[in-house]
Amino acid sequence: MEIRVVNLLEKANLIKNLHEYKLIAELNDYQFKLVKAKREFILHAHEETDEVFFVIEGNMKLEIEGTLYDVNPGELIVVPKGKIHRPICKEECTVMLIEPQNTLNTGNAKNVEPDLKLEWI
Amino acid sequence: MEIRVVNLLEKANLIKNLHEYKLIAELNDYQFKLVKAKREFILHAHEETDEVFFVIEGNMKLEIEGTLYDVNPGELIVVPKGKIHRPICKEECTVMLIEPQNTLNTGNAKNVEPDLKLEWI
Repeated sequence: MEIRVVNLLEKANLIKNLHEYKLIAELNDYQFKLVKAKREFILHAHEETDEVFFVIEGNMKLEIEGTLYDVNPGELIVVPKGKIHRPICKEECTVMLIEPQNTLNTGNAKNVEPDLKLEWI
Repeated sequence: MEIRVVNLLEKANLIKNLHEYKLIAELNDYQFKLVKAKREFILHAHEETDEVFFVIEGNMKLEIEGTLYDVNPGELIVVPKGKIHRPICKEECTVMLIEPQNTLNTGNAKNVEPDLKLEWI
């Protein structure tokens, strides 16, 4: 594994397209992913794992089991395993996700295509 | 598990003493810890796990196997499992560590007392 210092805003500036997850770090079998989003995502749950959202730019509302949490730059929130949730970014926001390898962005939702592309930046 | 939004700077402002680790979040069996430091720490390694350092305030130099990495606010670095390292904060810095539960801050170093206190803030 290459050792490098990762500047979150510099990495965010390299992202050109919305809703494409980019890999920025790995910690054992966990991945740190950056994504720029502007959408109301589908409700889903991850039945095997908790998930961390850390907001870097913009505002994200995270709906968890019917409650809305307001998450701003410099703030993180943990979605517990099995809780139905969806991120809502009305304006563009940049978020770092921390979760185990092979966690699907669509979780247990049916009839939707997960984003399986994951390039290092 | 209580669901809460964690503002890193607000949590940092609650820390009164240097070198006391505080727990701010858990992700499965991983812990997110905040610490304020002003010291040149001992060389050590974690033989079973990688470790993430994310700098929130101030400047940290991280020595890994003889190379110095300069880490500033908004930047993270992963120390690979087994690599001998030590953080160096010449001035006070605030750092978030991400690592498995029960990871000792002194790693495999001998003849030093690890900090075993870990309170939630």
